[in-house]
Amino acid sequence: MADLLWPGDHRAGDHFSDDEVIRCMLRVETAWLAALSAADVAPATAAVDLEDAVGRVDPTALAVASEAGGNPVIPLLAAVREALADRPEAARWVHRGLTSQDTLDTALVLALRGCADAVLQLLDQQVEALSGLAESNRHAVMAGRTLTQHAVPITFGLKAAQWLLGLLDARDDLRAARDGLPAQFGGAAGTLAGPDLLLRLTDGRGDAVALARSAANRLELPWSAPWHTTRAPITRAGDALTRATDAWGRIARDVLVLARPEIAELAEPAEVGRGGSSTMPHKVNPIMSVLIRRAALAAPGLAAQLHLAAAEFVDERADGAWHTEWQTLAALGRHTLTAAAQTTELLAGLHVDTGRMARLVSSAGTALLAEERNLAGFVGRGGDIDDDPTHYLGSSDSIIDAVLERARSGGAQ
Amino acid sequence: MADLLWPGDHRAGDHFSDDEVIRCMLRVETAWLAALSAADVAPATAAVDLEDAVGRVDPTALAVASEAGGNPVIPLLAAVREALADRPEAARWVHRGLTSQDTLDTALVLALRGCADAVLQLLDQQVEALSGLAESNRHAVMAGRTLTQHAVPITFGLKAAQWLLGLLDARDDLRAARDGLPAQFGGAAGTLAGPDLLLRLTDGRGDAVALARSAANRLELPWSAPWHTTRAPITRAGDALTRATDAWGRIARDVLVLARPEIAELAEPAEVGRGGSSTMPHKVNPIMSVLIRRAALAAPGLAAQLHLAAAEFVDERADGAWHTEWQTLAALGRHTLTAAAQTTELLAGLHVDTGRMARLVSSAGTALLAEERNLAGFVGRGGDIDDDPTHYLGSSDSIIDAVLERARSGGAQ
Amino acid sequence: MADLLWPGDHRAGDHFSDDEVIRCMLRVETAWLAALSAADVAPATAAVDLEDAVGRVDPTALAVASEAGGNPVIPLLAAVREALADRPEAARWVHRGLTSQDTLDTALVLALRGCADAVLQLLDQQVEALSGLAESNRHAVMAGRTLTQHAVPITFGLKAAQWLLGLLDARDDLRAARDGLPAQFGGAAGTLAGPDLLLRLTDGRGDAVALARSAANRLELPWSAPWHTTRAPITRAGDALTRATDAWGRIARDVLVLARPEIAELAEPAEVGRGGSSTMPHKVNPIMSVLIRRAALAAPGLAAQLHLAAAEFVDERADGAWHTEWQTLAALGRHTLTAAAQTTELLAGLHVDTGRMARLVSSAGTALLAEERNLAGFVGRGGDIDDDPTHYLGSSDSIIDAVLERARSGGAQ
Amino acid sequence: MADLLWPGDHRAGDHFSDDEVIRCMLRVETAWLAALSAADVAPATAAVDLEDAVGRVDPTALAVASEAGGNPVIPLLAAVREALADRPEAARWVHRGLTSQDTLDTALVLALRGCADAVLQLLDQQVEALSGLAESNRHAVMAGRTLTQHAVPITFGLKAAQWLLGLLDARDDLRAARDGLPAQFGGAAGTLAGPDLLLRLTDGRGDAVALARSAANRLELPWSAPWHTTRAPITRAGDALTRATDAWGRIARDVLVLARPEIAELAEPAEVGRGGSSTMPHKVNPIMSVLIRRAALAAPGLAAQLHLAAAEFVDERADGAWHTEWQTLAALGRHTLTAAAQTTELLAGLHVDTGRMARLVSSAGTALLAEERNLAGFVGRGGDIDDDPTHYLGSSDSIIDAVLERARSGGAQ
Repeated sequence: MADLLWPGDHRAGDHFSDDEVIRCMLRVETAWLAALSAADVAPATAAVDLEDAVGRVDPTALAVASEAGGNPVIPLLAAVREALADRPEAARWVHRGLTSQDTLDTALVLALRGCADAVLQLLDQQVEALSGLAESNRHAVMAGRTLTQHAVPITFGLKAAQWLLGLLDARDDLRAARDGLPAQFGGAAGTLAGPDLLLRLTDGRGDAVALARSAANRLELPWSAPWHTTRAPITRAGDALTRATDAWGRIARDVLVLARPEIAELAEPAEVGRGGSSTMPHKVNPIMSVLIRRAALAAPGLAAQLHLAAAEFVDERADGAWHTEWQTLAALGRHTLTAAAQTTELLAGLHVDTGRMARLVSSAGTALLAEERNLAGFVGRGGDIDDDPTHYLGSSDSIIDAVLERARSGGAQ
Repeated sequence: MADLLWPGDHRAGDHFSDDEVIRCMLRVETAWLAALSAADVAPATAAVDLEDAVGRVDPTALAVASEAGGNPVIPLLAAVREALADRPEAARWVHRGLTSQDTLDTALVLALRGCADAVLQLLDQQVEALSGLAESNRHAVMAGRTLTQHAVPITFGLKAAQWLLGLLDARDDLRAARDGLPAQFGGAAGTLAGPDLLLRLTDGRGDAVALARSAANRLELPWSAPWHTTRAPITRAGDALTRATDAWGRIARDVLVLARPEIAELAEPAEVGRGGSSTMPHKVNPIMSVLIRRAALAAPGLAAQLHLAAAEFVDERADGAWHTEWQTLAALGRHTLTAAAQTTELLAGLHVDTGRMARLVSSAGTALLAEERNLAGFVGRGGDIDDDPTHYLGSSDSIIDAVLERARSGGAQ
Repeated sequence: MADLLWPGDHRAGDHFSDDEVIRCMLRVETAWLAALSAADVAPATAAVDLEDAVGRVDPTALAVASEAGGNPVIPLLAAVREALADRPEAARWVHRGLTSQDTLDTALVLALRGCADAVLQLLDQQVEALSGLAESNRHAVMAGRTLTQHAVPITFGLKAAQWLLGLLDARDDLRAARDGLPAQFGGAAGTLAGPDLLLRLTDGRGDAVALARSAANRLELPWSAPWHTTRAPITRAGDALTRATDAWGRIARDVLVLARPEIAELAEPAEVGRGGSSTMPHKVNPIMSVLIRRAALAAPGLAAQLHLAAAEFVDERADGAWHTEWQTLAALGRHTLTAAAQTTELLAGLHVDTGRMARLVSSAGTALLAEERNLAGFVGRGGDIDDDPTHYLGSSDSIIDAVLERARSGGAQ
Repeated sequence: MADLLWPGDHRAGDHFSDDEVIRCMLRVETAWLAALSAADVAPATAAVDLEDAVGRVDPTALAVASEAGGNPVIPLLAAVREALADRPEAARWVHRGLTSQDTLDTALVLALRGCADAVLQLLDQQVEALSGLAESNRHAVMAGRTLTQHAVPITFGLKAAQWLLGLLDARDDLRAARDGLPAQFGGAAGTLAGPDLLLRLTDGRGDAVALARSAANRLELPWSAPWHTTRAPITRAGDALTRATDAWGRIARDVLVLARPEIAELAEPAEVGRGGSSTMPHKVNPIMSVLIRRAALAAPGLAAQLHLAAAEFVDERADGAWHTEWQTLAALGRHTLTAAAQTTELLAGLHVDTGRMARLVSSAGTALLAEERNLAGFVGRGGDIDDDPTHYLGSSDSIIDAVLERARSGGAQ
């Protein structure tokens, strides 16, 4: 899968592709059949693994057919029942007691979890790469810049630690959001009345909540009270993904500034054919940073869309808000994963020109020590300031240590 | 083309599909080749129609390859040159003097124009349908509602005229935005230096601006001073499309309220299989309105994304902002066209239960005339108020006439 | 403080008012003076409580003067130094070693914490009120509605539990975001070079990090590695506040639907003069819900603004992104607190017409049991379905219990 | 009026201040009284100019009282009636036949028009300043930059013309939006039933539409069919204001890049005390551009808020959407006007270092001519390229001329 209008989109692989979403819906129905069967509601022969049916469902036909009911579950069930001609009990029992939103919400949760896992793995690699950059550039003095102008000396190691701090915050939140994604099994209006009735009429085992938990367990998802109209699991995931693009966007903007030819302290990893121009053959553009920044500019609006939807879940199922979530989630998930892969590559091969950094500090001269000179003069020790910027790095080392320690204790999972 | 997670998306046909965008890029390059040739810069044999090459370009491969340079033009040119093995002059001359942004901007303008035309055609149909509803329901009294509560009597004709007013505003703006979409032919940094040099070195005819105008003419687009970093044409189109979804969303929310079973004044067109539920066989949901409202909730964020990009066009080509526009435009265009088709269908078949409207007015009783009673009392004529709500419709007829007149004078184009 | 264009704004009291922000900035400078003094950097006489100076600072003059440097800290320091004519050591030492962003970020954190505390207190009251409504309406059967149409029976207790679930999620996140708000003490470019130099030159005690921690402790805030360009603390707070408005908005939309005269299952608390109309004397509008919904529509865009800013923190201090945060935070904080107060009042006095709910269920008749009838027929027990909706409430009670248990275990703090 | 958290806000003067909004509401009521009187509905003694009453209305008390009805009109009327004790006919007749939304919408239209006029005046000054910069820097060669890297030579005159192009687009749209702002006089549910009844009962002259037109004329506003729920006038204004901040933001980002010390081609106007730092006395920050960029980052979200509201205008008056418009409009209006004033000052005093531009072109050397060399080689004339960048400026002059001509023909109004 690859979006021509979002270069790099292929990096998100099949996450949230039509096939993946269909597969996830079928996994949900499979888990439900298994739970019905385990509770002696449905016969054992109904407990069929439906995932194989993915290949027999035409995504385009399904998409077209989904307009009539407003979601893809109804036509999917029709297709599945047809595909199960040789498994009549499964065909009869599939989806019994569920509602469309159960299937689609849980399927999107599965897709989202898969996407978040992929992002988290890349975040772990980024944390390692940045920890290395922070450590190895502890003494690489460069100009600190505020409001675009030279301020006081910093090190590139400190800058890398700052970048890292953003990643650690994002990783914490994305882990929590990912782990908190619950299954949705609530039935037509969140009462589990359908499953309850089936249990009663078939003398099945356990109650409807136990049945729902059993289905959730099969998907390795926590069960929650039905959240058909209570969307914190979705907005948390959206916010956490955006926290990641925020952190990467902040890095990308630094690279875009520092790779300008007049500054030239950083350069993107050189790779054959990367960063080319259609007309200027020798130009090399910081194209990874450009594409990462693109995602950072787009993600906040997508996360806001999820919040807006959350605020509009009226009744026991929303009248449009729910329907805006699906593509928004898919776009946000894919864009984040694409940017994650690009950032990982950017950080792994980032060229740091510490010599250039030092030369710019030199040519900036004493301006970078104006604050220090000012403070020293203030306490009557103006004569004690020398011209060596490395003498005025304050607690940079301790701050780097604190961030690195947090990175280590957070550990890859 | 059909998006599984945006039911109804197939209604947007191939607008902004990969093939369509590739075709548009090839049309731009074709026009440029023709202009180069007509100006005697390139030989006559270079003036080849490249559109046929669409079928020979693999969109997925193109998408993957577009990451390296950050846009699809570079790999497209490679593919085109390969496909033109038997037309060596065209292969040599294709794109000479242009920059990637020229090709992609103009291609997206073509795609956008095509999409806007399709929306405008549907808007014309909606205007006609609503004009009919306004006319035929002039005397259909119903409860006016403000802040969800009964207010004073209105007619459904007046409500339809209000809906129509929104469509007319949207149509005016979309027409203007569509007609204002210019070609982009500016060269590497907007100076037309490349075309100018080619003209000079080949003793071509005319100057570079004339060459650019000639290429634009072939696409039936106005030429503009290069707008590589000045994005009003894009934001105007985005705003106008959103003005349309605003107008439809407002209609959809009315239908969603008035089709509630406790109110039941309106119903969506009945169609076999439409509005079904995966579990409740007899339920009929107002699914067109749900899906239309979905677009209205999503469009403002997409239009804002285009404005945000516009504010970030630094230098002579932006460092990420440009890259956020493409998919945003495509999503906004397709969602708008999908909602346009759905609204057209909704309005064409809308069931208006004027009897039910009248009964609700009856049962609301004198509450609906409280304002009138109050005003009459104020001027000492309280006794002159009767209980017939049709006596208190004010200027509804004149207002309907004014809106209908504007609809007629705007005419379909 | 009260915003004429945001009715109800006075409910947010002085949170984020000019005076409050000035007071918070002075508290930060006070803590810093105390820390400098405690570390023997500044003399004991410098450790002055500056909060009293609030009254001597003209907010309007300060606002006007803040344009020159782009933030209010520089002119505030000028005003404070003037006000400290009789405390010359404090006047000399105030702000030494800090940067404007230290003062303003920490001040806004203090303001935000105060605002979050007020919201959390109201959330606790809402949790209590909704727990009561869920408990006492366990058996109040009403029509469940999906996609605006009647679906299956629920109870109002279950609906209240759903509303409550949203509040519990919001409360969890807001508590965590509030507790995670750190002080900002990093110096000119996040190295703490200024404080470090002062310590060295004055033979002060401890290192600069210890000094920063000491100042943070005095404000009862955790210290963090400088987060001048790493804004997760801000975006987390924004997201959590929006999670709260999402939850309230979802409640308000239900009330707005269910208080429509044709449905009339709920009504806002009656209060003299509330919900009035300028022209229709007897009309009572559900105005609390209208105003709550307003906040829910506005908050997502504000939270997105904070994310967008976070992605744009280039260099060691941002070139515009930081400056967008301040008013956005203030608006989001005040709107959230206003909506919190309105929701608390709404829930405390919500009129629940269980008789009307029952009558609507009655008049909906067997349609509400279509799913049950369908499932029973499916298992060959169609004859076992009776017409009593209370027999088909599934696990509503268990679900209510689960949510109530979570509410209890979360406890007010 | 000045917002401490939006430095520079005082530049927006009293536009949208509480007093201004109150004054505008009173102007609307004054116009209505005059129209009622002119139509012989109300006695001549009712036609009182209410604007003087502004001073007698306490904005804070009004704001607090506005929560009960959800808007400030109801309590304003109470205050006005009290203030008109000596003009009993005016007190009796004020607002008769109108609805709150009539008064508030028309008042906000007046405020918006005043604000737009102020912005347009500044835009005219900017157009003049940029026209001058484009003309006088026609021959100032500088490096064109794309994707942050050096591309081909341009002139600063061309860059100024590009900036100007953005302003001209914004000015066109803002003029149109401003001129299209209509009065709102529709009565309780947009039927003009109240005015119509008053005319009938008092044997007044003309019909209700004529009455509404007469009131609109007195405010020099066009009348429109009631647009209580049809918000194109509002979204158009919001979009146009944002088109202006887009154009300024694009300029500000260029200045922020080109004023970096390593580039130093541009500098903000030097002014005593401007751009200062709280700790680094000699630092000069490009603070105008920082603050302008801030507005450009914030405006798109505000404009989107207006569109979102527009899509949610259900019934004959919206249930929350309308209420989100007011503060959003005020913020967008004030931010735009503030940024307008800052941009005007920035452009009037912008320091252009053409010598520095030339030196950077020199030091970039032949890289800037790579495209030209490439094209020349392509046509077998590689030897004809020299090293003088001024020979390769293409149609820059013609493009500048085209933009300047458009600026002139657009004229200040």
